[in-house]
Amino acid sequence: MKELTALEAARLIAAGQLTSETLVRSCLERVAELEAGVQAWEHLDADQAIAQARIADRSTARGPLHGVPLAIKDVIDTVDMPTAYGSRIYRGHRPASDATCVALARAAGAIILGKTVTTEFATGASGKTRNPHNPAHTPGGSSSGSAAAVGCGMVPLAFGTQTYGSTIRPASFCGVVGYKPTYGKADVTGIKTLAGGLDTLGLFARRVADVARLASVVTGGRIAADLASQTPRIGFLDTSPWGAPDPATGQLLGETVRRLVEAGARVRDLPSPVGMATWCEIQDGLFSWQALQAFAWERLFRRDELQPKTCGVFEQYEQSATPESYETALGLAQEARAGCASLFTDCDVLLVPAAIGEAPKGLETTGDPRFNGAWSMLQLPCLTLPMGRGAAGLPIGVQLVGQRGQDAKLLGAACFVEACLAST
Amino acid sequence: MKELTALEAARLIAAGQLTSETLVRSCLERVAELEAGVQAWEHLDADQAIAQARIADRSTARGPLHGVPLAIKDVIDTVDMPTAYGSRIYRGHRPASDATCVALARAAGAIILGKTVTTEFATGASGKTRNPHNPAHTPGGSSSGSAAAVGCGMVPLAFGTQTYGSTIRPASFCGVVGYKPTYGKADVTGIKTLAGGLDTLGLFARRVADVARLASVVTGGRIAADLASQTPRIGFLDTSPWGAPDPATGQLLGETVRRLVEAGARVRDLPSPVGMATWCEIQDGLFSWQALQAFAWERLFRRDELQPKTCGVFEQYEQSATPESYETALGLAQEARAGCASLFTDCDVLLVPAAIGEAPKGLETTGDPRFNGAWSMLQLPCLTLPMGRGAAGLPIGVQLVGQRGQDAKLLGAACFVEACLAST
Repeated sequence: MKELTALEAARLIAAGQLTSETLVRSCLERVAELEAGVQAWEHLDADQAIAQARIADRSTARGPLHGVPLAIKDVIDTVDMPTAYGSRIYRGHRPASDATCVALARAAGAIILGKTVTTEFATGASGKTRNPHNPAHTPGGSSSGSAAAVGCGMVPLAFGTQTYGSTIRPASFCGVVGYKPTYGKADVTGIKTLAGGLDTLGLFARRVADVARLASVVTGGRIAADLASQTPRIGFLDTSPWGAPDPATGQLLGETVRRLVEAGARVRDLPSPVGMATWCEIQDGLFSWQALQAFAWERLFRRDELQPKTCGVFEQYEQSATPESYETALGLAQEARAGCASLFTDCDVLLVPAAIGEAPKGLETTGDPRFNGAWSMLQLPCLTLPMGRGAAGLPIGVQLVGQRGQDAKLLGAACFVEACLAST
Repeated sequence: MKELTALEAARLIAAGQLTSETLVRSCLERVAELEAGVQAWEHLDADQAIAQARIADRSTARGPLHGVPLAIKDVIDTVDMPTAYGSRIYRGHRPASDATCVALARAAGAIILGKTVTTEFATGASGKTRNPHNPAHTPGGSSSGSAAAVGCGMVPLAFGTQTYGSTIRPASFCGVVGYKPTYGKADVTGIKTLAGGLDTLGLFARRVADVARLASVVTGGRIAADLASQTPRIGFLDTSPWGAPDPATGQLLGETVRRLVEAGARVRDLPSPVGMATWCEIQDGLFSWQALQAFAWERLFRRDELQPKTCGVFEQYEQSATPESYETALGLAQEARAGCASLFTDCDVLLVPAAIGEAPKGLETTGDPRFNGAWSMLQLPCLTLPMGRGAAGLPIGVQLVGQRGQDAKLLGAACFVEACLAST
């Protein structure tokens, strides 16, 4: 049952061929089997999840996620579960309400299985989670637990967040689909603010169609993708200004392009646009100032309880981020956001690396975000799906980037790519 | 001591001529005297405020608001005081942290006096507060308690919020300075979200220089106004597409313009720009969808505990707001925001009504926001200051609107207008 996609599960439950309780119990068994090694969960109350599933099984209401288990990154508020934002400061904290995404998912029938591990405040200080494909490697971050839990079949759907690269990178490292909608598409009320002008909800699943359904739910229908076979126009963007991915990733990207062309997609090489090398610096300029503001209380009044790594990052930002540097970054971001529209004059989506390569060994860092930050700064929708394995046998994802607001088109193209890579 | 401005108080405290404790006790005496009639406070703990003031008096650290009392609208999180967002659902709620604006004000030395009354969730359902100039009249809203408390000398500084007209209108009705910075200038982490793309912090005081200092603190220095006498170029904008203000307001605006010209300001009549009549509709289109998303949990799971008026508004929005109508409003807002820059080609600020007229009689509504919503939608900075009294003897404010991001210029112009109106 761990192989069931969210849509298959929803269909079986709707048809009366599967109960939500059976599915939830199967997820809990998978957790019991693997959690000691993976450490994906911050909070999981089996009795509560089963009780919710039983209520769903007795209910006549039938939402689009009826009975389907969902994991929630622990930077997202839940009214019935503790929410600690990965921080000692908030240990045992009980939010007074659900975040909007949680409330919408519950109303659509989803069963909240539990809270997944996040790095501290979704920044760089790692949590306890390990890569489900090899426990000596990072799962990526900051949505570490969500990516890992979906990656080893503990749960078919999960929420994460992305402000820099916190959805795409862990999804690539854990071999799952990760999707960050256009900034602003999904309401972020009740998600702990990291950088208010960049924070987005992230969605994890095993299939593109699964994240598409979840996206429709959490945006109140603003993202309504038609996944019927469309043949996308793809721009294979030269990302060399950000450095090269590792050889295996480069090879898999080339192979993916070859297969897409064989399947009838139009793939064109796109040169790096002017200024692309600076996009990550602009992201840093926005991120540093906004994070300092968002964590004013923690920095000023609870500094001793921050992890040393988080503290060090704040200290560095306090030195480097000034009102003047921030205004400059805001101006450059506005120009870059307007300018990047030209990348899409002749193509529907860009094809780029999701990360440098496989999940690196060790749990100290969550990996290099160099192929992520610019898309977050540009506020574009992006999605990764698995395209193969690297030298160490770990998953590697391909990243597709859509035009601002064109999330439906991105999801359609991703569905095409997914089908193309699946057919061998 | 109730006549002291925040800057005078800060200066006296810094010079050792006044203790924070004396000032806080004086505020508390004023509250004791007037609160039965005004009802500005949701939470006020005299002992706690005095204890904080004593700590400030013993402290060697000297921030720009050292020892100065500050009131906080009850939609803004405070770690040491209950925060109920004006709602039964959150009665007794204790936030786990301070909002960013509260933390920054505390770090600057401000003494948090207490929490002021808000309408439910900063929407239309009135709280208990009365106009300090006549208890039969509304104080305006949603920042009712903050405007009223500053208006009758209970506290020299207060935080409010504005998403539609929740700072400018109550400030005008209560005879105080009210200031809404450019959207995005002040971080809103820890403020209960009403409409994420519109919410701004609002500042109340008795003088322009006071809100300017508070603005510098809450924006980490992004707003650094030079208030030295500048002679502003003012556009007297024709707002007739939104209807006419009442005769007293119209007369006072004319009188204000005459005095500004006498003082050497350049005032030019500006015709209504094309499309201005639709700006309020665009605001409604943004507001309705965003509010539905922000309150997903309360609407879907705690609906019975909403006030009937709030419930009615949500029901209306649930009928009218669709993904399609929202996308349309977003597109129109983007156009209007770009287009309105042309209003400022030849002037520094616009001069417009702050409200139709005096605070209306009765507490059922908080007044008509027709002169407020468009500036919130356009994300422009705006400020009101008292210009006279109306037929019922209640205050009437003039509103100045600045160019996007040009908050310092707006504050400078407001200082000129304030001085001009003070000199009789």
